[in-house]
Amino acid sequence: MWHQKTITLKPRNRGFHLITRDIISQLPELQEINIGMLNIFIQHTSASLTINENADPTVRDDFESHFNRFVPENEPYYRHTLEGSDDMPAHIKSSILGASLTIPITEGRLNMGTWQGVYLCEHRNHGGARRLVLTLQGE
Amino acid sequence: MWHQKTITLKPRNRGFHLITRDIISQLPELQEINIGMLNIFIQHTSASLTINENADPTVRDDFESHFNRFVPENEPYYRHTLEGSDDMPAHIKSSILGASLTIPITEGRLNMGTWQGVYLCEHRNHGGARRLVLTLQGE
Amino acid sequence: MWHQKTITLKPRNRGFHLITRDIISQLPELQEINIGMLNIFIQHTSASLTINENADPTVRDDFESHFNRFVPENEPYYRHTLEGSDDMPAHIKSSILGASLTIPITEGRLNMGTWQGVYLCEHRNHGGARRLVLTLQGE
Repeated sequence: MWHQKTITLKPRNRGFHLITRDIISQLPELQEINIGMLNIFIQHTSASLTINENADPTVRDDFESHFNRFVPENEPYYRHTLEGSDDMPAHIKSSILGASLTIPITEGRLNMGTWQGVYLCEHRNHGGARRLVLTLQGE
Repeated sequence: MWHQKTITLKPRNRGFHLITRDIISQLPELQEINIGMLNIFIQHTSASLTINENADPTVRDDFESHFNRFVPENEPYYRHTLEGSDDMPAHIKSSILGASLTIPITEGRLNMGTWQGVYLCEHRNHGGARRLVLTLQGE
Repeated sequence: MWHQKTITLKPRNRGFHLITRDIISQLPELQEINIGMLNIFIQHTSASLTINENADPTVRDDFESHFNRFVPENEPYYRHTLEGSDDMPAHIKSSILGASLTIPITEGRLNMGTWQGVYLCEHRNHGGARRLVLTLQGE
């Protein structure tokens, strides 16, 4: 069994955002799968996806603080600067974190750990709505 | 053909550990697959998985040294500090490296390169046993 | 439907290279898949794969500049140094970026965003030809 859909996430501020529910609520078909996989793919190069702690919101704040120091704006060696000082760091952050996630499905549910959630990592100041391709497969 | 199981790895010290054999030894079903994929998913947010050199153990030592400098403890901007100074860096390292791996299967074996092995990246000082969900599919 | 093949990319200079066409041109079977996934797996530990901007080549130059500062050569704490000063940084870069990509397929095409392309990230000065395992599945 295969099922695929594209969803659009509402625009979010620059930072790390928990979106597990936004995804699951779009996938009633999950419940029909006993063993399978979900692939979540973001169709952008300045936002990304990761899995991390779903409880304390300061974890997500610390991600934003760290990545801003880790991949600074306005480095003198950046040449791709026409789209704004947040653009080239956004591309680098998105490749470090990645454009897709693959999550196992077990008995109709995403089989993540208790403390795991899916993050949208919005690296632009004004990134706008973001498109995700969700691909489910299983039996 | 789908096959899925959860395994628990014994506790390991903070650092990078080769676990290719721990995984393959739990998957006799691999041999029945001619073309397929193995997904390995770690159900934690302070340990991660990567693929790297399987020979010289100093590579794994250098990973630990580098990631400790790259994502330091006790940064003044961390707000998520209640669980210890190794906790927030562990979350960041786990997102940089990732929670899952997808490896092709060819003629009954993981089709990695000669020098590739699977690493458990234990980012906590006392992380304890770690759970992996192994999902095999193929024909 | 499953289809798998190994391809060899021509040697490239150290840096980030757009290889979307090298991959698609080897996969006429893509057109037969209505919904599916492509996994691209690199069988090396000093080169990697990522998805990023496919238009302005200065993005790829800035990736090379940034990763060279981010993961420097000749750090005094590296112990794995016998294979040259570019070797240990190459291993670290490859784990940060990752050894594989999973891309959704929709109506016979890779369903990436308009600005997304597949990069070969060559982290060695003389990395030589690189082998990729391409695994297609779908219906």
